Amino acid sequence: MSIFNEHYFELKNGFLFAEVTRRVEEYKKQHPDRKVISLGVGDVTRPLPEVCIQAMHKAVDELSRSETFRGYGPEQGYAFLRQAIVDNEFAPLGVNIGIDEVFISEGAISDCGNIVDLFDQDCVIGIPDPAYPVYMDSNVMNGRAKNINILPINQDNGFVPQIPEKHLDVVYLCYPNNPTGLTMNREQLSKWVEYALREKCVILYDSAYVSYIRHEGIPHSIFEIEGAEKCAIEFRSFSKTAGFTGVRCGYTVVPKELTFNSEDGRTISLNYNWNRRQCTKFNGTSYISQRAAAAIYSEEGQRQVRENVDCYMKNADLIRETLKKYGYDVLGGEDAPYIWLRTPDGMGSWDFFDKMLNELSIVTTPGSGFGQSGEGFVRLSSFGRPEDCEEAMKRIEQWKY
Amino acid sequence: MSIFNEHYFELKNGFLFAEVTRRVEEYKKQHPDRKVISLGVGDVTRPLPEVCIQAMHKAVDELSRSETFRGYGPEQGYAFLRQAIVDNEFAPLGVNIGIDEVFISEGAISDCGNIVDLFDQDCVIGIPDPAYPVYMDSNVMNGRAKNINILPINQDNGFVPQIPEKHLDVVYLCYPNNPTGLTMNREQLSKWVEYALREKCVILYDSAYVSYIRHEGIPHSIFEIEGAEKCAIEFRSFSKTAGFTGVRCGYTVVPKELTFNSEDGRTISLNYNWNRRQCTKFNGTSYISQRAAAAIYSEEGQRQVRENVDCYMKNADLIRETLKKYGYDVLGGEDAPYIWLRTPDGMGSWDFFDKMLNELSIVTTPGSGFGQSGEGFVRLSSFGRPEDCEEAMKRIEQWKY
Repeated sequence: MSIFNEHYFELKNGFLFAEVTRRVEEYKKQHPDRKVISLGVGDVTRPLPEVCIQAMHKAVDELSRSETFRGYGPEQGYAFLRQAIVDNEFAPLGVNIGIDEVFISEGAISDCGNIVDLFDQDCVIGIPDPAYPVYMDSNVMNGRAKNINILPINQDNGFVPQIPEKHLDVVYLCYPNNPTGLTMNREQLSKWVEYALREKCVILYDSAYVSYIRHEGIPHSIFEIEGAEKCAIEFRSFSKTAGFTGVRCGYTVVPKELTFNSEDGRTISLNYNWNRRQCTKFNGTSYISQRAAAAIYSEEGQRQVRENVDCYMKNADLIRETLKKYGYDVLGGEDAPYIWLRTPDGMGSWDFFDKMLNELSIVTTPGSGFGQSGEGFVRLSSFGRPEDCEEAMKRIEQWKY
Repeated sequence: MSIFNEHYFELKNGFLFAEVTRRVEEYKKQHPDRKVISLGVGDVTRPLPEVCIQAMHKAVDELSRSETFRGYGPEQGYAFLRQAIVDNEFAPLGVNIGIDEVFISEGAISDCGNIVDLFDQDCVIGIPDPAYPVYMDSNVMNGRAKNINILPINQDNGFVPQIPEKHLDVVYLCYPNNPTGLTMNREQLSKWVEYALREKCVILYDSAYVSYIRHEGIPHSIFEIEGAEKCAIEFRSFSKTAGFTGVRCGYTVVPKELTFNSEDGRTISLNYNWNRRQCTKFNGTSYISQRAAAAIYSEEGQRQVRENVDCYMKNADLIRETLKKYGYDVLGGEDAPYIWLRTPDGMGSWDFFDKMLNELSIVTTPGSGFGQSGEGFVRLSSFGRPEDCEEAMKRIEQWKY
């Protein structure tokens, strides 16, 4: 026997962004004179909202004085932040979440990755394709490579993952979607909740881009759908909402009504066991980051967050409309910071990536990096600086493709 | 089949600190007039070093401006911090660690818990008793309850875990030790490294309390021992060194020479695969926390950190010497912030905990919470305020036990 968890060998080469970086660095070396504009990785560029800056300075000062110093915080996060989330993110939607159903973490990616610990190794997992690679890789690492069912998102199904005919134990959904930039309406999402309730399946709902929803009728939380509290876990993040990619803060909602029966008939609460997991393998999120997160829920904080989101969505509008105008086939970018661009003439994702890099000095993300159904697409991110986006679009206008 | 990872059912009731808190709250309610002093939980009380405060204010300001804003950092941590660790923690020991062997995280507890992901489910694990409950619980969660070998630390072996006669795949060692407050000398640790090299066993070396070592001849890192780079992973934290329990920053050293052969003969690098794990399930540590951590490596930073450590060790000296003077049997507290107190007259840990709480209003941690061999002991922490420690010791002096 090998001492090593050999399931790691089953991981596909997942270094999508590393490969993008490698090619970009190579290109820059060969063309030091050209200005490379990145519409690739989904990282924010705008400084943090002023309310967060103030809150962090205050929190740092508290840690400098004996009387106000704080050490370990609750593993689940401070009540001040959990309450603010409940009151501001869910109550306005008519969704009743208790603060002991909200778990603060240092980022949604960790929760999305670690949540698989709660499930049996033989669980049957549904994963959309294209999707954020963490869903697949974290399950493969846990020994479920053979139990994964791919749910394609493509032309044939109108880019909406179809309700499967077979049983799934766990399914991932991400809306607004990364990488396609598309959303699900209430009816579509309701069908998934119905499926999950019927099949006793858990929906892992990644809602990291919720702040980018602008149109009516698009659910802001899966818990807006009746019955979802019995079948869903929702992951959220301050990364894209408030520019926290370097500050690190996210949260996960695990409803208390989400229970199962064990083989011997005991009731299993995922809330109880996620709490147990976090209290064992996690020791709480930085106090400073939690104060920064709570600050966005003031009136002024909401205004500043909205300003950031609006700026990125203005980028999205520009990218989407420019591409459309010049005859490209684009999806998304209306209620999400990503545009899903079909490569012209059926080119491969990496080929088109290389072409845009070489001819326009624009970096995108090859769709095939998100899964097989992403082949023939590239993802464009709207998180760049407006002036860079504008310049990139000018290059596209003049492109003799 | 249950969808749930039923290995969670095999967890013993591990809510040691929750139970301590419950009893203390109950006591406070019944005796609102009494001043309760905690020598229980191992959380720091002194404010952060001034160098950290300054570094954090500066980092926050950087995030407020477009030109200096930073989003996602490297999953492994910023080079400025990794280099500072290599130069200041290991080079002075004559230990040659590369910066790509250092992984920054938001705390050693997460790394200690998550590291088990790298090992085969059937691995044979050695866990000292008493020990930090995370070692046991994280393995039980991963389905290794039946593969755990307890290594007792007790009177019979002079409170040093014995080299086992049988083969272990993975073994935990924690020095300076939590909860006993004892250390291992170079000879003792060398024997473990020899064993690990001989048996192709991985030592998971928890070194969170290294800053409290005061005496000569005690290794500050397992990598001071020849050959350890081929068999050990070391976990470290800024929590106790610099008061970061609320700021969150730790690191793990996974040497590149730590390799194994797979069943089919491939070479497996734990460094490569830990990197893979972190890049998948972790998205980097708060930039602000990393700047704070790096700040302790200036000359002034080292002075300030030393001041904090000295203050806590003065508490340890007072607690240890007072208890000795009054005839108690105590261990530890010379090179560690914990004192391991044998309960008088063979009392049970919880009984003595209750007695000290009820008669002295002093909170300790029952030794049995750290494992069976901890029965008959309580742990006293020296992380309190000096004035509280002094008052607690006065109460002990006047105690008609």
